Amino acid sequence: MAEQPRDGNCIFCRIAAGEIPCHRVYEDGAVLAFLDVGPLSPGHTLIIPRGHWRTLDEVPAEVAGACMAIAPRLCKAVMAATGATAWNILQNNGKAAHQAVDHVHFHIIPKAGTQGLGIDWPAGKLDAAEGKRLAGVIAGKM
Amino acid sequence: MAEQPRDGNCIFCRIAAGEIPCHRVYEDGAVLAFLDVGPLSPGHTLIIPRGHWRTLDEVPAEVAGACMAIAPRLCKAVMAATGATAWNILQNNGKAAHQAVDHVHFHIIPKAGTQGLGIDWPAGKLDAAEGKRLAGVIAGKM
Repeated sequence: MAEQPRDGNCIFCRIAAGEIPCHRVYEDGAVLAFLDVGPLSPGHTLIIPRGHWRTLDEVPAEVAGACMAIAPRLCKAVMAATGATAWNILQNNGKAAHQAVDHVHFHIIPKAGTQGLGIDWPAGKLDAAEGKRLAGVIAGKM
Repeated sequence: MAEQPRDGNCIFCRIAAGEIPCHRVYEDGAVLAFLDVGPLSPGHTLIIPRGHWRTLDEVPAEVAGACMAIAPRLCKAVMAATGATAWNILQNNGKAAHQAVDHVHFHIIPKAGTQGLGIDWPAGKLDAAEGKRLAGVIAGKM
């Protein structure tokens, strides 16, 4: 497992260290899951890596993998506990994308009637030539 | 690696099999990444497991992990190609949660000015006693 950097001023680092309490639902050596204190719906849960990384691009591959490897079990447990049958996984990077705590976290947000994540989906249409060009540029940067 | 179920009528299974073209940016034995044909912003990319699972709770842990293990590199490449500095990862489960294709997929959605994912965030406040009770119920179902 990768080194786990820590920011002593980060609320999620302090929760992971047990310095600030949380409503924990799961933990292992790499990740921690607990209820969001500002839930969008009952059962709104966060998965965080124990280490401090601000955005997903900075997270080591095995840590990002560990966060999602536990998600199927967590989703099952949250939906069984709440009775929800639809839900969103959301992870925000940067203030413009609604990130509120600068420690990578994945939201599990159940849909409960009108409660849950509000989504606006102003989809465009990918031009075939532009898609070919852009896919080539992205692949070239991998 | 887990068995990879297939649904011959699923558009993402057919893309993964190479029967339908896509603007591919990455692939390996477990996952495939390609541009969304209905992008919310330039560089809107999907990560899918090659196998067919409808919702995240059904996905084997190692497959869910593989989808996210590649995300840091993909996010870096997409942001480098588009110049975006903020973005969302979104994975929808169930029609009520905006799932449009019944094959698990993770969206990487760059923010580009007003383009990108529209988010409404009607947060509540978690009652401490209810949080304790609910966390216990969820943990008990893990």
